[in-house]
Amino acid sequence: MSFAPLQNDTFLRAALRQPTSHTPIWLMRQAGRYLPEYKATRAKAGSFMGLATHPDFATEVTLQPLERFPLDAAILFSDILTVPDAMGLGLSFGEGEGPRFARTVHDEASLESLHFDLESLRYVFDAVTSIRKALNGRVPLIGFAGSPWTLACYMVEGKGSDDYRAVKTLLYRRPDLMQRLLDLLADAVAAYLNAQIDAGAQALMLFDSWGGVLAHDAYQRFALPASRRVLAQLKKTGADGQRVPHILFTKGGGLWLGDMLDSGADMLGLDWTLDLGRARAQVGDRVALQGNLDPMLLFAPPEVVAAEARKLLDSFGRPQRADGGWGGHVFNLGHGISQHTPIESVAALVEAVHAHSRALR
Amino acid sequence: MSFAPLQNDTFLRAALRQPTSHTPIWLMRQAGRYLPEYKATRAKAGSFMGLATHPDFATEVTLQPLERFPLDAAILFSDILTVPDAMGLGLSFGEGEGPRFARTVHDEASLESLHFDLESLRYVFDAVTSIRKALNGRVPLIGFAGSPWTLACYMVEGKGSDDYRAVKTLLYRRPDLMQRLLDLLADAVAAYLNAQIDAGAQALMLFDSWGGVLAHDAYQRFALPASRRVLAQLKKTGADGQRVPHILFTKGGGLWLGDMLDSGADMLGLDWTLDLGRARAQVGDRVALQGNLDPMLLFAPPEVVAAEARKLLDSFGRPQRADGGWGGHVFNLGHGISQHTPIESVAALVEAVHAHSRALR
Repeated sequence: MSFAPLQNDTFLRAALRQPTSHTPIWLMRQAGRYLPEYKATRAKAGSFMGLATHPDFATEVTLQPLERFPLDAAILFSDILTVPDAMGLGLSFGEGEGPRFARTVHDEASLESLHFDLESLRYVFDAVTSIRKALNGRVPLIGFAGSPWTLACYMVEGKGSDDYRAVKTLLYRRPDLMQRLLDLLADAVAAYLNAQIDAGAQALMLFDSWGGVLAHDAYQRFALPASRRVLAQLKKTGADGQRVPHILFTKGGGLWLGDMLDSGADMLGLDWTLDLGRARAQVGDRVALQGNLDPMLLFAPPEVVAAEARKLLDSFGRPQRADGGWGGHVFNLGHGISQHTPIESVAALVEAVHAHSRALR
Repeated sequence: MSFAPLQNDTFLRAALRQPTSHTPIWLMRQAGRYLPEYKATRAKAGSFMGLATHPDFATEVTLQPLERFPLDAAILFSDILTVPDAMGLGLSFGEGEGPRFARTVHDEASLESLHFDLESLRYVFDAVTSIRKALNGRVPLIGFAGSPWTLACYMVEGKGSDDYRAVKTLLYRRPDLMQRLLDLLADAVAAYLNAQIDAGAQALMLFDSWGGVLAHDAYQRFALPASRRVLAQLKKTGADGQRVPHILFTKGGGLWLGDMLDSGADMLGLDWTLDLGRARAQVGDRVALQGNLDPMLLFAPPEVVAAEARKLLDSFGRPQRADGGWGGHVFNLGHGISQHTPIESVAALVEAVHAHSRALR
């Protein structure tokens, strides 16, 4: 496969801590329900999975936010739960509910019945290639997957949870089974992400959305090593020889930022509870940082949104000289954008990040 | 009022960083649904609020866990939402649901209509006195309240929330109104807690259950100063001249432990995401620490529970010499005990904490 040359590589450069002319910005869940055009396409597709499993629809919604805002990256439209679905657990999304699995993992037998069918995820790889072509070199395309621990949560609980009782009970009662499940998942996720690179993904992000619910020791013993096992297996370059940055995002993992420095990720995603200046001081020049505006700040008036964005850029600090490496920053929210977000706030945010980060240089 | 002399002051001493013969333990929500005798009393009372508003029932359930386990403190049976209820918002608990308010705070008018009627909380103070008498000096009685920020969350949202959109929208759009609400709440909470001291409470705990959902800047600007405003107004001694330790617990606040050092609290409560050894190193001898076992660990077999409790005590480190101050530790869970917890796990936990902490000395 060959694709059009990349015109805006700001995101890739920042993620690899190379100098850039401005701070790049994209938003988690930027192709989503806050956009009327997304809702229209979803209505055509019939359901969330109808969107995700049809490359044409997935391409259409992935590009929608780029038509409205000068974002510096696109992210594959998909779900973190595709991997357990491809292991035979039967994923569904009830209307107005979260995801649900028909079967769960709860003992040796249910663990042993898991067989990962990478080929059944062909629709994802087709979507990656289709989006990459449609982007035509405009901005890079980010592929992604759920982290082993986060996938394990859903696979054991069968759905979202308030207290993670089932998955933590398994972890505390049968650490051996939990380890086997995480190992299995790590290898499947790595194969899945590498196949996304082969299909055209130019960066990869691992979402450890539930890492933050673990006790300190359990995070260190289970979730972090499992993410490390994924990251260690990922290809570092695409077919075109370009470096493919790897991103690890752990919601609620701020206390473990120092522990994540040797995760193997090029960039760490931060939720909104961290002070970006403190975080930068802590990580030094070892990794780039992505984040971390509170998504709820987008409910403030546009001028407040812009002012807070400038404050966040200021707290990261001025970029250093263009001839030296510097702690790269990719602007993002600290979590996915809310479906209720006013569109004018997003416009104000993107404009403020671009303008102020240029002024800082 | 005069009460029987205290026989076990281990909890009070540890909270004030004085030497103790063992590490004291109590459990958040220790009077609760995991106990069959609690469920029986609740059935008699008809509802949760029926329990909380009748001093005889509140006394009965408060003492129940002490009959089963040699816990080192009792905590008033009540709810954090009594204060907004006493401001006229109309608290109710639907069956199988969380709390709900009939009215919310959402603008100037609804804020101005709040009037705190301390006297309407007489049932709480009566319960405190009744429990203190029934304890007969066995262990100290902890009084408590919700923090201003946590109460504001419920008062603006009207109920629990996934994303805190309403309260954060108010905070980001109308920081002036949020500040007025927090000031009003801080003064009401302080009056409420001081009245609990007058009624016989021997320690006070402020629950900032939702502090951890805030962005870094918003926590520093709103939630922490509001808790500080409460703590600054609290009486430091009871009617008997005994020091009344003040505890601040912020779920999800681990990143801000250093910022809480000057909150005015004698002891800081930790959730399970912190490493206790790291936390102790960070706070030095400035405050005592309370916590922080993952409540879900109680679903492990009793021997695992005991081993993890010993590990946690070891990570805090050995107490220093008895003639010097040392960073006190009160053992607790990192959050309330689950209603599904096996009782034998609790017994194993309390026994292990007492035995191992004695052995460490």
